[in-house]
Amino acid sequence: MKIIVLAGGEGKRMWPIQTDKCLIPFLGQPLLYHNLKQIKEHVETPEFVIVANLQSKEKVSNIAQDLGLNFQISIQNEPKGMADAILSAKDLIDGEILVINAEDVLEQGIFKMVSEAGGDVVVPGLQVKHYFPGGYLRVDGDKVQGIVEKPGEGNEPSDMVKLVADYFKDGKKLVEYLEKIVTEKDDQYEVALGQMIKDGVEVKFAKYDGIWFPLKYPWHILDITAYLLSKLEQKISPTAQVSDKAIIEGDVVIEEGVKVFEGAVIKGPCYIGKNCIVGNNSMVRESDLEEGCVTGFSSDITRSYIGANSWFHTNYVGDSVLEEDFGMGSGAVIANLRLDNKTVLAGNDHQETGRSKLGLVAGKGGRIGVNASTMPGVRVGVGSLVGPGVVLKRDLAENKKIVLKEESFEVKDYDSAHTSYDQFRDKLK
Amino acid sequence: MKIIVLAGGEGKRMWPIQTDKCLIPFLGQPLLYHNLKQIKEHVETPEFVIVANLQSKEKVSNIAQDLGLNFQISIQNEPKGMADAILSAKDLIDGEILVINAEDVLEQGIFKMVSEAGGDVVVPGLQVKHYFPGGYLRVDGDKVQGIVEKPGEGNEPSDMVKLVADYFKDGKKLVEYLEKIVTEKDDQYEVALGQMIKDGVEVKFAKYDGIWFPLKYPWHILDITAYLLSKLEQKISPTAQVSDKAIIEGDVVIEEGVKVFEGAVIKGPCYIGKNCIVGNNSMVRESDLEEGCVTGFSSDITRSYIGANSWFHTNYVGDSVLEEDFGMGSGAVIANLRLDNKTVLAGNDHQETGRSKLGLVAGKGGRIGVNASTMPGVRVGVGSLVGPGVVLKRDLAENKKIVLKEESFEVKDYDSAHTSYDQFRDKLK
Amino acid sequence: MKIIVLAGGEGKRMWPIQTDKCLIPFLGQPLLYHNLKQIKEHVETPEFVIVANLQSKEKVSNIAQDLGLNFQISIQNEPKGMADAILSAKDLIDGEILVINAEDVLEQGIFKMVSEAGGDVVVPGLQVKHYFPGGYLRVDGDKVQGIVEKPGEGNEPSDMVKLVADYFKDGKKLVEYLEKIVTEKDDQYEVALGQMIKDGVEVKFAKYDGIWFPLKYPWHILDITAYLLSKLEQKISPTAQVSDKAIIEGDVVIEEGVKVFEGAVIKGPCYIGKNCIVGNNSMVRESDLEEGCVTGFSSDITRSYIGANSWFHTNYVGDSVLEEDFGMGSGAVIANLRLDNKTVLAGNDHQETGRSKLGLVAGKGGRIGVNASTMPGVRVGVGSLVGPGVVLKRDLAENKKIVLKEESFEVKDYDSAHTSYDQFRDKLK
Repeated sequence: MKIIVLAGGEGKRMWPIQTDKCLIPFLGQPLLYHNLKQIKEHVETPEFVIVANLQSKEKVSNIAQDLGLNFQISIQNEPKGMADAILSAKDLIDGEILVINAEDVLEQGIFKMVSEAGGDVVVPGLQVKHYFPGGYLRVDGDKVQGIVEKPGEGNEPSDMVKLVADYFKDGKKLVEYLEKIVTEKDDQYEVALGQMIKDGVEVKFAKYDGIWFPLKYPWHILDITAYLLSKLEQKISPTAQVSDKAIIEGDVVIEEGVKVFEGAVIKGPCYIGKNCIVGNNSMVRESDLEEGCVTGFSSDITRSYIGANSWFHTNYVGDSVLEEDFGMGSGAVIANLRLDNKTVLAGNDHQETGRSKLGLVAGKGGRIGVNASTMPGVRVGVGSLVGPGVVLKRDLAENKKIVLKEESFEVKDYDSAHTSYDQFRDKLK
Repeated sequence: MKIIVLAGGEGKRMWPIQTDKCLIPFLGQPLLYHNLKQIKEHVETPEFVIVANLQSKEKVSNIAQDLGLNFQISIQNEPKGMADAILSAKDLIDGEILVINAEDVLEQGIFKMVSEAGGDVVVPGLQVKHYFPGGYLRVDGDKVQGIVEKPGEGNEPSDMVKLVADYFKDGKKLVEYLEKIVTEKDDQYEVALGQMIKDGVEVKFAKYDGIWFPLKYPWHILDITAYLLSKLEQKISPTAQVSDKAIIEGDVVIEEGVKVFEGAVIKGPCYIGKNCIVGNNSMVRESDLEEGCVTGFSSDITRSYIGANSWFHTNYVGDSVLEEDFGMGSGAVIANLRLDNKTVLAGNDHQETGRSKLGLVAGKGGRIGVNASTMPGVRVGVGSLVGPGVVLKRDLAENKKIVLKEESFEVKDYDSAHTSYDQFRDKLK
Repeated sequence: MKIIVLAGGEGKRMWPIQTDKCLIPFLGQPLLYHNLKQIKEHVETPEFVIVANLQSKEKVSNIAQDLGLNFQISIQNEPKGMADAILSAKDLIDGEILVINAEDVLEQGIFKMVSEAGGDVVVPGLQVKHYFPGGYLRVDGDKVQGIVEKPGEGNEPSDMVKLVADYFKDGKKLVEYLEKIVTEKDDQYEVALGQMIKDGVEVKFAKYDGIWFPLKYPWHILDITAYLLSKLEQKISPTAQVSDKAIIEGDVVIEEGVKVFEGAVIKGPCYIGKNCIVGNNSMVRESDLEEGCVTGFSSDITRSYIGANSWFHTNYVGDSVLEEDFGMGSGAVIANLRLDNKTVLAGNDHQETGRSKLGLVAGKGGRIGVNASTMPGVRVGVGSLVGPGVVLKRDLAENKKIVLKEESFEVKDYDSAHTSYDQFRDKLK
């Protein structure tokens, strides 16, 4: 069986995260690494066909090599959707295939389930409670009767969302169908499946009820972080220097070269990447710190994803996604909870996140000045700066800075005669 | 002897605290509970007549039942002063009576002193150094010659303030006098006492020099807190979870279900109510935390009264009175000391508090946003919100929010090319 | 040999530091004390002639007495430069002399080097990489051929800066030359040396390559602090109370009467002066705290010079020079690093400091309000106040205050019905 891994797509809704979704690192390795590793371990002698794009080709190839996979790379020149991605690899497709998204996090059992279901085509579905902007299945028993792509909330034909882990006994047939279909929307693949059904091909339904973490919006990174962290077991590198006055509790992985200073607390599950420094009196909980991060004195980092080489100093960071090279001045705070008790809406377009807690989403190289504050769910573009003392209530585009206007302040005369120390000292007692 | 407990009055000067003064909880019990308990323990077989109002009736009754008192409740329909309160209970009055305010904190000895002084009427007085807005006594030896209610600063007839712990050998006679007196001001009771003196009734003076904590202004809650805390002895509930990396020092009471995390410091005298959470690296000193409070990471709470179910996160709270359901975002600070070394004046009307340190007074459900600051002595009304980054210099009425105007900020282009991590990393070394 | 110590000059570039440069205390003693002590220990039977000014006379004299020196004081009535200073002491000069600046920090060897070099006149020089606003030497072998005072960057005649540790076999001859020279600029001394060279006096050059810390700008105080700290060895006074839950690491001197509370961390080299209080969870690193300072809860003081009787409370103070009686409200932060990675320019005139990190320079009695921020390299004048929440981007003159304008805020209605505690409590779990 060949496994067709779609890794060339773009993340239209991921702003301000620019990294290819499947290349975002978690626990020291790209998401693609975690996903391919799992398949390798649970599918017998898999052959991979990985569809990358021009930019990601090399990194994707390196990941597959690192894992010692039997693989071929195909290039999708532009991110024109799933059908285009598969067609870009058509010369590599024959026999049985399994089509998956590179960035979807699924449980291992799903691959076995679909490939052993015994249909010409098998597609898995998951029952959902809330609308998800993906494809929906119309099902009768173990037969799929139709697929509706992004029907819009309220128009769902069922509560069964179509996952992408699709089995085809004859991969070449899928290619033939895809080559015939022309649509205006980005739904060629689903239309092709629909046509197969109409033509009498047996499309079986496999009901899946394991975990599923798609990656459409940047805050989904927090779900994936929490899931991958939940699988950790405590492991502290012998080259790490952990003070005996620090507290390590639960399933915490501390990589090589890490320093943890006196009074620091790390509560698992937690991943502390290579060469990170966890400063005095800092607390890190349920977070992923990629390599080279520094959490200076008395920082509090909770349920967050922190990209490599980011630095903090006496900050609160909760439920936030901060890409690499992020920096935050002393006293700056990321608010993560609405005082009116509603779920957080993200950014200027008030995107419903469904999360009761969400802090900041920041692109690479973001900077937050001393004593600045960011409101729940705002986003900061790549390379932008929130000035000292600013309260950021809206998204900040790339390469911008927002500052307090000088006119906000005024200078007056001041008689300091009464402020002698002795008087203060007395008061302090 | 019947003890007439006046518990129906209103607290005109207590804004923004709305709770009936005698029902404000201290160390897990209403103030009335503390006061009645003391009388029960130091007066032989007391009978209580408690004058409540319609709203407080049930709670007052429950308190008396909890204490196993011999009591009757009388209802004062409107808060029309002390004489009206006594008259509302006139059918329950006969024989010896002792009239006290439900909320005044006094030492036990005063009850014995007045009831054994041997007069037809005995009123206690206390020598004061500064003006107090209450009644003043004119005294000759152990005889009271007159009473002046709220004379105004500079017009005091003596330095002897009249306390309310008044003994009458014949309670019915007091009722008769009160029924005859009609005044325009709220001073019927004092005028009645004056008339008794004129009519030749022996009104004895009993000089008291113990502690006395009246409750006229909300910051008086801090005095009562400090006094009640000073009587504590260390007691830690066996159901509390106190980390062995936390420090408990001095007379600290920790109630059931409390969690105290690593690095926390609690310095007595201190009361930590049921189910409170004292977070990592937090310090709580000389404070009363009613049940269900959470002091998140690295908070500093000092000499304060904290109502139930309040929460904090990396804040400084000093010398403050915060009613229940109060919440404070990370980095918010309550200033409690004037930089010009003067005593703190409260709120918009610059009420002299006589305190060198006073922080915030907040009504129920108050909220302070991240990185906001409040100036010494300001007050926040019930359900109001101080927005993130705001510096609150004046009182905020009920159900208001104060925010930084959007026009205070400006957005500019920013060239972040120079902020690569490696350069920063080098600097950090 | 008589050592002429020039201690009467003024520090034109030292604003807002007003203390005479040589009287600024380091490690509990004035700089002059450190410098004279070193000479006493490394020069045989030195006789000192110290040129003070009217204000400093008594303190300078006390220092010399404390050290048990053989000394005379001369008074320079106005700060009119080096030549004037020497001439003010002309009646005390005869035989061999060594002329030094009271505030320059040099290694002991230099005195021996110049006095044993064997010339009629010997002047030492130091090779520099960057322009320094002092005198430059033109040198040929071990002969000085000329001196150029403050040539301006780019016009330096060499890379050899002239230090002030000048030996004259015949001090009277120097006096004669100085009395003849009249110049418009403040360079009489250098012109006199130049004239000696022209007249054939042998002026020898002594190449020095030890440490040299001049004190021209206030941030030079940080260099001197670091140097003097580097020579410390751990010494904790038996009268100091250091909690066994505090951490003392490296070469830390803790003077008598100091209190160090639980959770505090002091990392050497560090000097903690008499009666200082290092509060709970505070960290002090590589800093000089003069006597009577208080670092309240969770403060972080790094690489800084802190004058006597200053107080802090949950602040970050990095790379800063704060004169005595300084105070800082909770949450205030001193930024010490430019986010654009350039070296810090000081104050309104953008003086290049050459430092990659520089925080605040504050004169005596400065005050920073709660949650205020100061930008790298700004200066605050004596007795001035930075109001709460202010972001200080420019220098603040003496006796001024800068505040956020009231118009920066607005009050609106707020419906708090949804903010009940139970909902929040659930969210916090």
